[in-house]
Amino acid sequence: MTATPTPYVHGYGGTEQQRLQDQATTLEALLHADTRYGPGEMVLEAGCGVGAQTVPLVRNSPGIRLTCVDLHAESLASAEARLAEAGLGPVTTQVADILALPFPAARFDHAFLCFVLEHLPAPEAALLELRRVIRPGGSLTVIEGDHGSTLFHPECPAARHAIACQVELQRRAGGDAQIGRRLSALLRGAGLEEVRVSPRVVYADAGRPALVEGFIHRTFIAMVAAVRESAIAAGLTDAGRFDAGIEGLRRTAEADGSFTYLFFKATARNP
Amino acid sequence: MTATPTPYVHGYGGTEQQRLQDQATTLEALLHADTRYGPGEMVLEAGCGVGAQTVPLVRNSPGIRLTCVDLHAESLASAEARLAEAGLGPVTTQVADILALPFPAARFDHAFLCFVLEHLPAPEAALLELRRVIRPGGSLTVIEGDHGSTLFHPECPAARHAIACQVELQRRAGGDAQIGRRLSALLRGAGLEEVRVSPRVVYADAGRPALVEGFIHRTFIAMVAAVRESAIAAGLTDAGRFDAGIEGLRRTAEADGSFTYLFFKATARNP
Repeated sequence: MTATPTPYVHGYGGTEQQRLQDQATTLEALLHADTRYGPGEMVLEAGCGVGAQTVPLVRNSPGIRLTCVDLHAESLASAEARLAEAGLGPVTTQVADILALPFPAARFDHAFLCFVLEHLPAPEAALLELRRVIRPGGSLTVIEGDHGSTLFHPECPAARHAIACQVELQRRAGGDAQIGRRLSALLRGAGLEEVRVSPRVVYADAGRPALVEGFIHRTFIAMVAAVRESAIAAGLTDAGRFDAGIEGLRRTAEADGSFTYLFFKATARNP
Repeated sequence: MTATPTPYVHGYGGTEQQRLQDQATTLEALLHADTRYGPGEMVLEAGCGVGAQTVPLVRNSPGIRLTCVDLHAESLASAEARLAEAGLGPVTTQVADILALPFPAARFDHAFLCFVLEHLPAPEAALLELRRVIRPGGSLTVIEGDHGSTLFHPECPAARHAIACQVELQRRAGGDAQIGRRLSALLRGAGLEEVRVSPRVVYADAGRPALVEGFIHRTFIAMVAAVRESAIAAGLTDAGRFDAGIEGLRRTAEADGSFTYLFFKATARNP
């Protein structure tokens, strides 16, 4: 949210919005099913983007009073349209920086963020600011990926290289594509209590064709392929090498392949 | 089972037996809970070793007629003693090579193997031989790890190096410590049907002290540390570098650390 979007960053552009929607549909049960807030509770979604995660959030917790903030007004407009299309809402939206939220202390019962900390140069500061606006006893829920968890067959050095390009570009923009493994340290470091981290495995092989299409092709490969031009422009790769990497990732979607990825979901309580 | 045990191979020696027992206890629910066979069914456990996995297998499926085979008579004796101590059994044991099982075709309803394929130079041949002794419509269940799934915080190149030593030594002995991701290909390649692979995540951080002790220290680090002398003798490392790697792995067990590992469990049906 606070990182200035650069051409590479996933989450912007029309194709990217489709990818985020595909991802949200495929992964909805895996990531969201166990987040349920009570009717009337005040919930903050920080860094909602175009609302890909907002729809399942509201669907699973009807009757909450949800406030969505994002740095970008156009993202908030997309999120509102998406919620309306799904017959959900209305919600309160507000342009805001996660590092300086325009809310009084203890305003919310709960805060929720998904694929946000990975983009922040100072996730520690964001967590402290979120803690400020959550009431004592309220909860924080965080979902992030970790590209270091990627495991596939057949193994392919070029595919590893292509993924490394994405990780490096995200690092140069101030983010961390491998933040999942750090959620425990980050939440404890922010003084939160009852920190509980639970990994969520996505596994695709020939026996799960919907995930082969929805996750390997339309989520993971789409995300890596989106950095092609930026990676070449940054001198991290050349077209031939990068394209071989994408081909290697596609190879894992064939009949004898497999692909595994881990998301990390963390919950914690504000003391 | 068919690989000649070398000093490095995990699974032999008193400390190793304790480690395997600790591992089996910590991971029992995660790996075994969904394997249940009916009373009277004929089940083959191939490569039972000292019986660390046999105890939960029998406990979860009382009344099965179990045959355990292993290459080593002393392992079978340990397995029988372990079962008796747990008040389980008796079972039929037989010294046998998984590549040439001393049973007629279609003798068993089900076959089960856990941490066995990873040691075989020809897992494909073993699967075909297992298929031969399973009746049509019977099932095969396979559990394996994959060291490539190891994900930890803080990251540590020396720790990666120490793990790589274990992987390389296992490779030189004809095995594959990263076989989990290949189970789908192997089972389909053997002509089995309804192949279903499901990853099982072990995740340990300060919020799960039993797994920090039982998995990070007593399972994973113990397994890697066991190859120290062999890795030095093979010229893969030196004492300083290897020990720094073990220290790096221990570091992940501290209050701000995290450690993730994936097992892969596969089931399939003999057509």
